[in-house]
Amino acid sequence: EIIAAVVDFLEGQPAGKPLAGKKAIVTSGPTHEPIDPVRYIANRSSGKQGHAIAAALAAAGADVTLVSGPVNLPDPTGVKVVRIETARQMLDAVQAALPADIAVCAAAVADWRVAAEAGQKLKKDGSGVIPDLKLSENPDILATISQNGSKRPNLVIGFAAETENVVEHARAKRARKGCDWILANNVAPGSGTFGGDHNEIFLISAVDAASDEVWPRQGKDGVARALVQRISRHFA
Amino acid sequence: EIIAAVVDFLEGQPAGKPLAGKKAIVTSGPTHEPIDPVRYIANRSSGKQGHAIAAALAAAGADVTLVSGPVNLPDPTGVKVVRIETARQMLDAVQAALPADIAVCAAAVADWRVAAEAGQKLKKDGSGVIPDLKLSENPDILATISQNGSKRPNLVIGFAAETENVVEHARAKRARKGCDWILANNVAPGSGTFGGDHNEIFLISAVDAASDEVWPRQGKDGVARALVQRISRHFA
Repeated sequence: EIIAAVVDFLEGQPAGKPLAGKKAIVTSGPTHEPIDPVRYIANRSSGKQGHAIAAALAAAGADVTLVSGPVNLPDPTGVKVVRIETARQMLDAVQAALPADIAVCAAAVADWRVAAEAGQKLKKDGSGVIPDLKLSENPDILATISQNGSKRPNLVIGFAAETENVVEHARAKRARKGCDWILANNVAPGSGTFGGDHNEIFLISAVDAASDEVWPRQGKDGVARALVQRISRHFA
Repeated sequence: EIIAAVVDFLEGQPAGKPLAGKKAIVTSGPTHEPIDPVRYIANRSSGKQGHAIAAALAAAGADVTLVSGPVNLPDPTGVKVVRIETARQMLDAVQAALPADIAVCAAAVADWRVAAEAGQKLKKDGSGVIPDLKLSENPDILATISQNGSKRPNLVIGFAAETENVVEHARAKRARKGCDWILANNVAPGSGTFGGDHNEIFLISAVDAASDEVWPRQGKDGVARALVQRISRHFA
């Protein structure tokens, strides 16, 4: 059962720079996993939520590196942006940006890549033969950061995009990955989350449901500011 | 062997409205083929070439319907735009727009879709089981239009994006599809065609190589204007 903890969202930007001196890494956007030179597997992710979080962390005084997959968004002000395409490139860029105090994994990383990327375009030659895409598991960026020994950030935050049983799946994900918080949202068709401007967020921060939070449905910028307030309280 | 036919590209827009009274259908952009609610297979296509052709046809006086996959481009001026996501939706939209005098198939249509789209997000559950993506062949929009009996447009033009043996593949494609012209270009890695602003074009319009044309490397707007000049000559 979920206890709604109503956070005061009306405060807007945190006063001052509560995260001055803190280093943050944010991942954002989708990854693209090549099938051949012209085709790829992608996730539906606009990058709006991750970019908004990077901007809000920078506004709160943090030193922010944003590792972003292909998106059509302007770079947030005052943020160092590293652009990548695949999950493996994203992991490399995140590891290169460590150590950090805060890691927010908001990217929609592809769980799988194509096992054998073709060097030439796959052809439909009229033979009727249809290729079978063998997949390989991608590195798990959130789990890798969460279990990174001495280089583990103090606060590791993941997202869970779910289409059913949102809170249960998010709680299991938090335990499996070893991260501190999971921000879960519902991306079922019709929810309007992907590409949209609004997110209803469940924050799962412990094993017991009593500490669960439900944040009211609000814009992605609002979610970003609320998250930065929670992060600032964590470090206060 | 290719005989280079140097077209006068310096003329800019055709004088007057040589295509007034003609109806044209242009397809543009990639298609996205869903794997599950959050993942899809895509092609690398910005839609720049197709959108530029639609704009140039409209500037030459044609009544243009642009059927476009997901792109980040403004709608061309004076063009009716129909937005679709999958190859099957694109075919439906093209057939709904028939009859037409001219069809230009510039979209990078996915040859295959996922055989069984999942209703829920595929989960990486730690079991180590990796899904195997079974593909099905998509409808062939260019071939369908080219072999459409009494509703076949007078002039059907396709594109061939090739990574090797560009002209040979394009000539075979023209024969296989039954279209009138193929505009072929090289999309090998490093050619900068996808997402870029330039295209080197080979126009294949007959079985014999003597009528092949090679257009000098130029911007996609230039290719669009050159194509509209060739189309205008065809109807003159």
